[in-house]
Amino acid sequence: MAKSIDVVVVGATGAVGQVMLKVLEERRFPVGRLRLVASARSAGRVVEALGQRVTLEVASPEVFSPGGLALFSAGAGTSQTWCPVAAERGALAVDNSSAWRMDPSVPLVVPEVNSARITPRGIIANPNCSTIQMLVALKPLHDAAGLEQVVVSTYQAISGKGARALEEFELQRAADARGETPNHAVLPGVLSQNLLTDWKHEDSGWAEEELKMIQESRKILELPALRVTPTCVRVPVPNGHSEAVWARFSRPIGRDEALALLGAAPGISLDPRVGPGLHPQPRSFSGRDDVAVGRVRVDPSDPHALAFWVVGDNLRKGAATNAVQIAEHAFGVR
Amino acid sequence: MAKSIDVVVVGATGAVGQVMLKVLEERRFPVGRLRLVASARSAGRVVEALGQRVTLEVASPEVFSPGGLALFSAGAGTSQTWCPVAAERGALAVDNSSAWRMDPSVPLVVPEVNSARITPRGIIANPNCSTIQMLVALKPLHDAAGLEQVVVSTYQAISGKGARALEEFELQRAADARGETPNHAVLPGVLSQNLLTDWKHEDSGWAEEELKMIQESRKILELPALRVTPTCVRVPVPNGHSEAVWARFSRPIGRDEALALLGAAPGISLDPRVGPGLHPQPRSFSGRDDVAVGRVRVDPSDPHALAFWVVGDNLRKGAATNAVQIAEHAFGVR
Repeated sequence: MAKSIDVVVVGATGAVGQVMLKVLEERRFPVGRLRLVASARSAGRVVEALGQRVTLEVASPEVFSPGGLALFSAGAGTSQTWCPVAAERGALAVDNSSAWRMDPSVPLVVPEVNSARITPRGIIANPNCSTIQMLVALKPLHDAAGLEQVVVSTYQAISGKGARALEEFELQRAADARGETPNHAVLPGVLSQNLLTDWKHEDSGWAEEELKMIQESRKILELPALRVTPTCVRVPVPNGHSEAVWARFSRPIGRDEALALLGAAPGISLDPRVGPGLHPQPRSFSGRDDVAVGRVRVDPSDPHALAFWVVGDNLRKGAATNAVQIAEHAFGVR
Repeated sequence: MAKSIDVVVVGATGAVGQVMLKVLEERRFPVGRLRLVASARSAGRVVEALGQRVTLEVASPEVFSPGGLALFSAGAGTSQTWCPVAAERGALAVDNSSAWRMDPSVPLVVPEVNSARITPRGIIANPNCSTIQMLVALKPLHDAAGLEQVVVSTYQAISGKGARALEEFELQRAADARGETPNHAVLPGVLSQNLLTDWKHEDSGWAEEELKMIQESRKILELPALRVTPTCVRVPVPNGHSEAVWARFSRPIGRDEALALLGAAPGISLDPRVGPGLHPQPRSFSGRDDVAVGRVRVDPSDPHALAFWVVGDNLRKGAATNAVQIAEHAFGVR
């Protein structure tokens, strides 16, 4: 492949930024000049990435090349400021923050679901991790039977909150092992041997993460009236989100048909096994780029409804991999 | 209180049997003669319980006193054989196994829901732990607004599988801490840093635990056509089951009304707080006899539906406490 594309990773030292670099390398994205943007504290440090020695720098208009790719994962504030600059300079900004997701002029993309919305320039938003893996699984079923309603409970991994939360969790586990009371500062409580709801809440009781799943699903599937009811929970699992999904369709759908549809769909690793322990698990699926679907079963109370279980690597398909896949489509490099 | 009731605990050395003894003591159940039934391997051993020194013995018709109480938690096989013997001898058998739950002639009771079904003699079945805590929470809402449909995901603790599963989980955690690969024999896989579906499955993909929640909810609520769709998951939490419940009613129900109904209902500790970490948690609620309900919110897609979070101690309200409460009603001692 002769093509080579200048790439800048904004938030290069963060948990997702690091995985973005790994995924670019693994998927042999044709990286031309690589630039890495970090906070002022890290700027000037030289790091090794994709076989290049790169000096970390702060954001400036000059880091964004016309015709280049800018991958953002440095929080909504940074994206709010710098994605438009990248786009004006003629780069494609793929943004992993929540800054642009619900902007009507910005595509919100899961390539397996709505790759037609991908543009070669401008800003494209990467959805929330919990939304991405759920929609990869729902898409083939929706195409066949018309999705009407979703009730979903999440079992979300600690890495979704970043490296500092993982470190705090390890300290909590060690304190438990010594019989001491664990502390918390990053997490909103003790997650060792426990479960936490770990997101900002509205007065209505709804958590930010839950509202994202509702709004983003409607936008991506282009079903503005879709009924989506999530409960988001942080579990003591280091990496890999899991979801228990109940979905209702406009017509009956059997287990065999559902398995056939899921098995033929892109980006899905179908697990058709039945029995204790025979299902996708975050411990073994962490590190994968696709999404695992298992425990597919027809609702005994409603032939229009299915229940199933979805596992995805929240740092990869839930963030870095999805962003790189968007870039692959945009630049026609895969 | 002059009354005193002969009590036999069948399965006295098991995890639930031990909690039954503790709960009888804490709740000052007026125990007359106490007999403890265990396996042939343990028979003959002398143990201290409720301030008495008691010799463990194998099951025989003579252990069941007319007018006495027999608490069973020694597996379905033992209950199948011995509950009818206890009943014929004129005792009340309260059975924590699944043996009699779906027998049309046997009451299946959660005292907060259907105490009117309690009989002074014969067999009464204690429901599955996951069913009990869900129905305690649903009952006041159902009475007010007519329950039509439930979708529930569970986050079930390891103690529900017994003491050997807890020991295996501790070994798995220690192996992880040493960087070694954990083994499993009791659990169907590695639960450390992971999630497992941990019950027998039908060919349809449905797990035994899920079918119990469907069938038992219908029987207890006397709603044979109730739509209930569960997903049951074992999480790396030692004790205390949690559940994300979505429930639809025959009329709209607001958050304030729901909070008022739940706050006034028996057996419920309502947590009306809103925010990260501000909700019932298994780590802090383990050891309680009631059921905690929090994160109550109205479905933004459907004013007839509520989502909420329920936490209960699966060994207490999910097993031992519920059984002792049934006995308290039956003998009129509380």
